[in-house]
Amino acid sequence: MSLDRLIKGIIEKNNPTVVGLDPKLSYLPEYLLREAMENAPDPLTGAADALLRFNRALIDALCDIVPAVKPQCAYYEMYGWQGMRTLCETVSYAREKGMYVIIDGKRNDIGSTMEAYAAAHLGHTAVGETQLRAFAGDALTVNGYLGSDGIDPLLTVCKKEDRGIFVLVKTSNPSSGELQDRLIGDQPVYEIMGEMCEQWGADQIGEYGYSAVGAVVGATYPEQLSLLRQKLPHTFFLVPGYGAQGGGGKGVAGAFDQNGIGAVVNSSRGIICAYQKEGCDPHDFAGAARREALRMQKDITENL
Amino acid sequence: MSLDRLIKGIIEKNNPTVVGLDPKLSYLPEYLLREAMENAPDPLTGAADALLRFNRALIDALCDIVPAVKPQCAYYEMYGWQGMRTLCETVSYAREKGMYVIIDGKRNDIGSTMEAYAAAHLGHTAVGETQLRAFAGDALTVNGYLGSDGIDPLLTVCKKEDRGIFVLVKTSNPSSGELQDRLIGDQPVYEIMGEMCEQWGADQIGEYGYSAVGAVVGATYPEQLSLLRQKLPHTFFLVPGYGAQGGGGKGVAGAFDQNGIGAVVNSSRGIICAYQKEGCDPHDFAGAARREALRMQKDITENL
Repeated sequence: MSLDRLIKGIIEKNNPTVVGLDPKLSYLPEYLLREAMENAPDPLTGAADALLRFNRALIDALCDIVPAVKPQCAYYEMYGWQGMRTLCETVSYAREKGMYVIIDGKRNDIGSTMEAYAAAHLGHTAVGETQLRAFAGDALTVNGYLGSDGIDPLLTVCKKEDRGIFVLVKTSNPSSGELQDRLIGDQPVYEIMGEMCEQWGADQIGEYGYSAVGAVVGATYPEQLSLLRQKLPHTFFLVPGYGAQGGGGKGVAGAFDQNGIGAVVNSSRGIICAYQKEGCDPHDFAGAARREALRMQKDITENL
Repeated sequence: MSLDRLIKGIIEKNNPTVVGLDPKLSYLPEYLLREAMENAPDPLTGAADALLRFNRALIDALCDIVPAVKPQCAYYEMYGWQGMRTLCETVSYAREKGMYVIIDGKRNDIGSTMEAYAAAHLGHTAVGETQLRAFAGDALTVNGYLGSDGIDPLLTVCKKEDRGIFVLVKTSNPSSGELQDRLIGDQPVYEIMGEMCEQWGADQIGEYGYSAVGAVVGATYPEQLSLLRQKLPHTFFLVPGYGAQGGGGKGVAGAFDQNGIGAVVNSSRGIICAYQKEGCDPHDFAGAARREALRMQKDITENL
């Protein structure tokens, strides 16, 4: 009915961050790929197996200090259906370890097609009398360009299955303004999208005042982040762009409310490739991720 | 470098249509699912196998009269990685049979993540020294809400690998206007998105005058369809909403230029579920799809 499970995890761990699991092969220590390839029947199966080993080790190293992970679908699709199997197994493993899983798919469509995406990532798929989970995330990122027809099917599943969505509002990339900053009357497009999030979530508000419909708002636009925090009091923010894309702890402070909640800040490469930057033994990649996650936690909570 | 391969197929078959392969289990004849389930190790594998049998029979029945198919990712993701394997095998099979394959994923992201989607659906994935195709489509539908950062990585792959994209401009659903019809100055959002398509495609224009960057424009808004045809002379249209969603042959005529090209009209359920509407023997589902595809061809070409 809301994003409360995520918020509870953030409060318990005093850590409003999520680790993006975006595992390109080039991010992996060489030995991991080599080991996975040795017994693989084909290259994509080997690659997918290496990605799974990488993710599992990261989840093991992070699950007691970080409340959530955000696997990015593109990096799994790139390795074919074998990569999608790794996505599926990564989601299960993270949930077993008590982490909240935001599947970053930015999915969008309408009607029965959107119902299919909702079933795939948040709900159940019927096969005969059996109801099965396909990817089984806790939340899914979505794109609202198609309007309510694309969001309503998700709201039904969110309510029924205690799941959440994050709608793209103001993205972190340099060209996000080409459409998102254009004015409709005296309001930029992203603000209108933000107001739609408030409406979509209006009847699924949880105990912290936030609904099941969150918004993606980039760390790279601190002014818009603060402004949107004020304008969208019931909309929880997923904030990409920390670290690799340039935003820091001070820059994201405006995403939080006066109680220090209201947002979860993502870092992907900054954490999962920390071993490369640190220059440590590649066998310690998960340890380096943990050290960087703790540094990020400090950087963000200090600035609240 | 363009959508010329698609356009050539349309001209050769005198058929500007594409069949949407959106195979929910409930669309399949019962016997097909039963047969697939008999030897399946688990329900999702059985379901995915049934979908593949359905798709293959449809492709066999349509490949000499219909130039293209458009599998919708959501219906494959719903059946997990097993479903994604069926997507992969469906794309291969359709291409073997000479059909142009538009993967309908409405993918969107930025930078290296969008590169990953481009590799997954249009290009190649590197595993060590090996370059592999993951899903191997000819074109991919995409959502342009994130601006050029989300489109540029696709343009690189389109140029290098002779592939195409279709950007959502004006979608066919009732609520598409919530954002897409809102005015920026005196132009609706969808027109601005259409102009961006013209820009993105400007240096990849093929022999028919159309670029590698097409647009999705719904059949349910005939006025906007005609207007956009005039305003976007180098942008080829993918037109959903024919049939099940209400648009007919007259309604889509405005999508075509004076040479009778410029668009490909999609029908999904109208074709693949034709056997249900026709009430024929379910074993003849592919025959019914062929009869309906021929009727649709006539309905559209008569109105050009």
